[in-house]
Amino acid sequence: MSSEFGTVLRVSVFGQSHGRAVGVVVDGLPAGEAVDTEDLQRFLNRRAPGRSAQSTRRFESDEPVFLSGLEGGKTCGAPLCAVIENTGQHSADYDALRDTPRPGHADYAAWAKWGGAADLRGGGHFSGRLTAPLCVAGGIAKQILSRRGIFVGAHLAAAAGIADEPFPLHPGAELFAAVAAKPFPVLWDDAGERMKAAVAAAAAEGDSVGGIVECAAVGLPAGVGEPMFGGVENRLAAALFGIPAVKGVEFGAGFAAAASRGSENNDPFTVEGGAITARTNRAGGILGGITDGMPVTLRAAFKPTPSISRPQRTVSLSRMEETELRVRGRHDPCVAHRAVPVVEAVTAAVLLDLLLEAGALDRPDFKKGGNENGIG
Amino acid sequence: MSSEFGTVLRVSVFGQSHGRAVGVVVDGLPAGEAVDTEDLQRFLNRRAPGRSAQSTRRFESDEPVFLSGLEGGKTCGAPLCAVIENTGQHSADYDALRDTPRPGHADYAAWAKWGGAADLRGGGHFSGRLTAPLCVAGGIAKQILSRRGIFVGAHLAAAAGIADEPFPLHPGAELFAAVAAKPFPVLWDDAGERMKAAVAAAAAEGDSVGGIVECAAVGLPAGVGEPMFGGVENRLAAALFGIPAVKGVEFGAGFAAAASRGSENNDPFTVEGGAITARTNRAGGILGGITDGMPVTLRAAFKPTPSISRPQRTVSLSRMEETELRVRGRHDPCVAHRAVPVVEAVTAAVLLDLLLEAGALDRPDFKKGGNENGIG
Amino acid sequence: MSSEFGTVLRVSVFGQSHGRAVGVVVDGLPAGEAVDTEDLQRFLNRRAPGRSAQSTRRFESDEPVFLSGLEGGKTCGAPLCAVIENTGQHSADYDALRDTPRPGHADYAAWAKWGGAADLRGGGHFSGRLTAPLCVAGGIAKQILSRRGIFVGAHLAAAAGIADEPFPLHPGAELFAAVAAKPFPVLWDDAGERMKAAVAAAAAEGDSVGGIVECAAVGLPAGVGEPMFGGVENRLAAALFGIPAVKGVEFGAGFAAAASRGSENNDPFTVEGGAITARTNRAGGILGGITDGMPVTLRAAFKPTPSISRPQRTVSLSRMEETELRVRGRHDPCVAHRAVPVVEAVTAAVLLDLLLEAGALDRPDFKKGGNENGIG
Amino acid sequence: MSSEFGTVLRVSVFGQSHGRAVGVVVDGLPAGEAVDTEDLQRFLNRRAPGRSAQSTRRFESDEPVFLSGLEGGKTCGAPLCAVIENTGQHSADYDALRDTPRPGHADYAAWAKWGGAADLRGGGHFSGRLTAPLCVAGGIAKQILSRRGIFVGAHLAAAAGIADEPFPLHPGAELFAAVAAKPFPVLWDDAGERMKAAVAAAAAEGDSVGGIVECAAVGLPAGVGEPMFGGVENRLAAALFGIPAVKGVEFGAGFAAAASRGSENNDPFTVEGGAITARTNRAGGILGGITDGMPVTLRAAFKPTPSISRPQRTVSLSRMEETELRVRGRHDPCVAHRAVPVVEAVTAAVLLDLLLEAGALDRPDFKKGGNENGIG
Repeated sequence: MSSEFGTVLRVSVFGQSHGRAVGVVVDGLPAGEAVDTEDLQRFLNRRAPGRSAQSTRRFESDEPVFLSGLEGGKTCGAPLCAVIENTGQHSADYDALRDTPRPGHADYAAWAKWGGAADLRGGGHFSGRLTAPLCVAGGIAKQILSRRGIFVGAHLAAAAGIADEPFPLHPGAELFAAVAAKPFPVLWDDAGERMKAAVAAAAAEGDSVGGIVECAAVGLPAGVGEPMFGGVENRLAAALFGIPAVKGVEFGAGFAAAASRGSENNDPFTVEGGAITARTNRAGGILGGITDGMPVTLRAAFKPTPSISRPQRTVSLSRMEETELRVRGRHDPCVAHRAVPVVEAVTAAVLLDLLLEAGALDRPDFKKGGNENGIG
Repeated sequence: MSSEFGTVLRVSVFGQSHGRAVGVVVDGLPAGEAVDTEDLQRFLNRRAPGRSAQSTRRFESDEPVFLSGLEGGKTCGAPLCAVIENTGQHSADYDALRDTPRPGHADYAAWAKWGGAADLRGGGHFSGRLTAPLCVAGGIAKQILSRRGIFVGAHLAAAAGIADEPFPLHPGAELFAAVAAKPFPVLWDDAGERMKAAVAAAAAEGDSVGGIVECAAVGLPAGVGEPMFGGVENRLAAALFGIPAVKGVEFGAGFAAAASRGSENNDPFTVEGGAITARTNRAGGILGGITDGMPVTLRAAFKPTPSISRPQRTVSLSRMEETELRVRGRHDPCVAHRAVPVVEAVTAAVLLDLLLEAGALDRPDFKKGGNENGIG
Repeated sequence: MSSEFGTVLRVSVFGQSHGRAVGVVVDGLPAGEAVDTEDLQRFLNRRAPGRSAQSTRRFESDEPVFLSGLEGGKTCGAPLCAVIENTGQHSADYDALRDTPRPGHADYAAWAKWGGAADLRGGGHFSGRLTAPLCVAGGIAKQILSRRGIFVGAHLAAAAGIADEPFPLHPGAELFAAVAAKPFPVLWDDAGERMKAAVAAAAAEGDSVGGIVECAAVGLPAGVGEPMFGGVENRLAAALFGIPAVKGVEFGAGFAAAASRGSENNDPFTVEGGAITARTNRAGGILGGITDGMPVTLRAAFKPTPSISRPQRTVSLSRMEETELRVRGRHDPCVAHRAVPVVEAVTAAVLLDLLLEAGALDRPDFKKGGNENGIG
Repeated sequence: MSSEFGTVLRVSVFGQSHGRAVGVVVDGLPAGEAVDTEDLQRFLNRRAPGRSAQSTRRFESDEPVFLSGLEGGKTCGAPLCAVIENTGQHSADYDALRDTPRPGHADYAAWAKWGGAADLRGGGHFSGRLTAPLCVAGGIAKQILSRRGIFVGAHLAAAAGIADEPFPLHPGAELFAAVAAKPFPVLWDDAGERMKAAVAAAAAEGDSVGGIVECAAVGLPAGVGEPMFGGVENRLAAALFGIPAVKGVEFGAGFAAAASRGSENNDPFTVEGGAITARTNRAGGILGGITDGMPVTLRAAFKPTPSISRPQRTVSLSRMEETELRVRGRHDPCVAHRAVPVVEAVTAAVLLDLLLEAGALDRPDFKKGGNENGIG
């Protein structure tokens, strides 16, 4: 099992960067759910390259063709397959790389696993290109969730070491929409300008920068998630680390919690409007792997793009000796801003899977949260 | 699917803190593997409570009874079941808590999920007690791996905001054994003393502290792991977040990579002793989810123990109003140092599963690493 | 993945015939479900040996001890573990068999898989003894289902080539209870007497006989099951072939359908009491892998007990030459009648899993069957 | 989880009969395996319609387009996706059927599950059309297995109640090739002629017939398969019941074993050419779910095509009353002969998955069979 995640909702991604197409099969979607393809295309465009100076100039339209699972604009119960053709690739750029694995890329690891048969052109199956079909799956999940009052949003929390402001305690659909509409997805535009300048500076030096994406999901009832290894954190982390370049995932206060005291880090419960809630959200909406009704919040760390034009030291696999490498072609000096919708997509797909597994998506007591009978 | 992880090797944990027993079923172990039960007991003792002033005084022996899967001291191919009786619990301590969920604990989330039927005594199925059977499974995995020259070790990288020194670039079996033999598992004993003082200070104030565990696995060939969602990072994270109190997981440079540049963060390849290796290990031994032959390194963030004796604000579930809570009973002011062997255990079990899935555990070319044919 | 089945409800069986205990972990049971242990024990007694001249005289009490998951007589959401000690085994009977695999047994196949480490005593993990914990899991599933008006029953449809009468078109809870109360579980007692005579005749000749179990589940709504490989037939067959000695599984008309014409085999739909139903049930209540609201019916073929006291030809593994084998010890001359509750148990567990996966167990529209919105 | 099977090798099928395309994603194929597309096309042509008077006259080319996973004629490690366009469908034929579910078809069950959103045209996702992508996956698996001396073949063992002769005790690659080359895949052509006459007679009466496919796999070592629910029988049955119209699956003597005695049904072991083998093969090469080195043999029962032109009784879903239905369009009066390669395909894919899971595909001791160390 590899390029798949999910238990009741299965998301299976395929394709290589320079192959014929990339795509996704989504098995287990509820039937009768409308898919707004224009809204979906707008979501996909947030990820697509070529939109700004911060992105690669390779241009691809990212227009999915639905081969199955969608009839008359609605899911029909059968597995949905969407395919996006690859059109903009320049394979010749990569031919010289077969013998000299790029530092920081999967080239060498893939070669060690699959030998000479591995398709390493443009990163092959490890390319960021694979996040396009992920966004198709997650974009549909977002539509299904939002119809039930569950909204997922994200922003670029940091890039090149420059921090955006964090989400407020209770972010909502409007804030998410406002960020999504921006060409550079930050809350605080001043920070965004400084990030862009830092990205441009790195690019000018033939270098790249990393970043952090913060994501939140609001509207979930308490009681979603399975114990121990089936928890919300486990499932989200397992899927999020599948996004290329992610090297860390934390929930709520995350690593900062490790330096805090219990009296600071415990979120006091309170009652508001007849419902149980918490005064703070250091837990990121998750206790024991299960939602507590507060917003689910997480942060994913993206390493700097490994493809840089500066000369680097690597080895020749055929000669087994060190050599110098200059990566050519068009590369993003930063991927984290384009990863914002990808993190939303993966988060939405995992949460939909957990709701389906708990049989909680359409239960009449869905919104009431925990009670004497529990929700699943 | 909840209290289970693994694809070919399945680890299934059961039990509640104040139930009759906790235990584990391990399905898919290779047959004919000797299990050194004395060595295993020493490993379990590293996790057991009551060993130091930094731990709860609840005393339990953590002696596993093997109900199946082990004959004549060797695995026999059938699923292995080990059970550890619960003996030291004082359930009366918890009776008052049913109506007033403890902040930072799973009480409220579990009640929202399972309703009044949830067994919340001592944390129920969400208790740190469940890490004892995890250590049985992982301790056996460690023995199987070490027989093939793969070693897994960990240390307390930080507690109460005080940092230990990090593992060196190439840690090894001897260093791992030296840390494991210490009563307080740090590399730098001066830092350990300061950590212990900080834990004691927090305990004296009825408070608790969090910490970070760093873990490394050495001796793995390049080419282990499945692409995208079946990668080493995905699988490890999915399992590690099942350890109670973990709120963040990062690999290699992790979150620090997000603030670095590509030219700093890419690990240059080189050749040493006829084999490909890297000069640095910012990737934590994992590129594209697949091992590159360098040590696999990770850090897991543990939040401070939520059970503190200071008064806290919570709600009465029956009266739906705020109230004050004082948690009684014996509680660890810090769990991170006891979690060190747990992180090793989970890491070892996941790596063994990945090696089995790749059919690579006993291949003659196992140690050679990548070649024209790949390893799996 | 081996000794486990289920997607949302996971049933994991462990133990060897002559090990310390056999048992089961059931992960994913709904919380708050009462378990009537007396009723469960009566169910287990139907499977237990030593009840009649048709069974082995090895006596074991089959009394499960619940280690977890059950508090105050109700499921608490955490995984349920039940253990049954092995007490009646005579391992000395089997020592001579290590070198001479018994024809028709798993001895040789297990040795080929696991080598000399395999525990072959009494069939090891392949023993019929493992059906005792299966009945614990399935007996609990039966109680949960019957609470919702879903009943599962079975009878010995054939033994030694002598046929019982088949279930009527619409069997029900009363008929199931009546068969379950009989010492020999047939519908037509005359046929049962002839079967017993045939079993006795075979036993007198040191031989054994096979049989067929027919099982039905009533009260399921239409629309349960996943398409293609997740269908009711796929899931049931995958689990039923895990019962030792099962060599064939068919649904509805099964193999007889292959010799029929479409005009005979298609079940005409009709309307009764305002609900859609069918006039016949050649489909066994399953169309396209999904329930159609008619009783789910299946038949499982059990081969004759391979342990017979007649001399048989086998090989000596150490000498690699043919030799004669005489199996000693106490063996059932027929297992199919004791397998009747086992087939019920496995069927109930699989159906509960499918209902949970569809989120349909407690939906208010559960009983109405299909409508414009579907059930899952 | 629905339209997928496999543990290490995952086969995921998508598409509806009258949608844009059908296809398959195969995740986990070993890298570097050549795919002979001409040989694969010949295999697909054995399933394709329009080849004989016994088949539907709907013509489709069944030419797969590979979107990913295949580079330079070899698998590259990444998931393989193959798509087959739908071109020959006449949707208008089915429009009248939405309100009147066809007896014996999945129409009603799918409507009960998915409501009005279900795509029922031509059987939708339940159509036999979905076996085309299954044959792509299985045809590639067959090539990979045959390269290691493992061959899978099948024939039409019965149709309309007329039996072909069974496979001999040790069928082989040549026999499989000979049957595959025939326009009507039987061993005994006289029986084939009588079958064709019976099919024609049924067709002339607006009716249809069922049949049985026997399949065998030779060249597997002893020791393949996981215990209990992960056995060869469990895995094969779980996948085979995913082929539309299959209502029964049996291994070796199957249901006939239930009427036999142990002394007849046990296969005596013997030694031939220095290797352990059996004198008979009532077990179908599987003991305890694990291969014993004899040919794996199975039989799958196919019900008669439910689409018949004779008038049938059904209901109007909108009026909730009985009505008469006449199914129009082009339909196979028998599907079992076209199902022969499909059974081969599914069998090959499942066996490849089991070999990969055991890490046994390329082990040097692969062919030696069981020994003191076992194979997996």
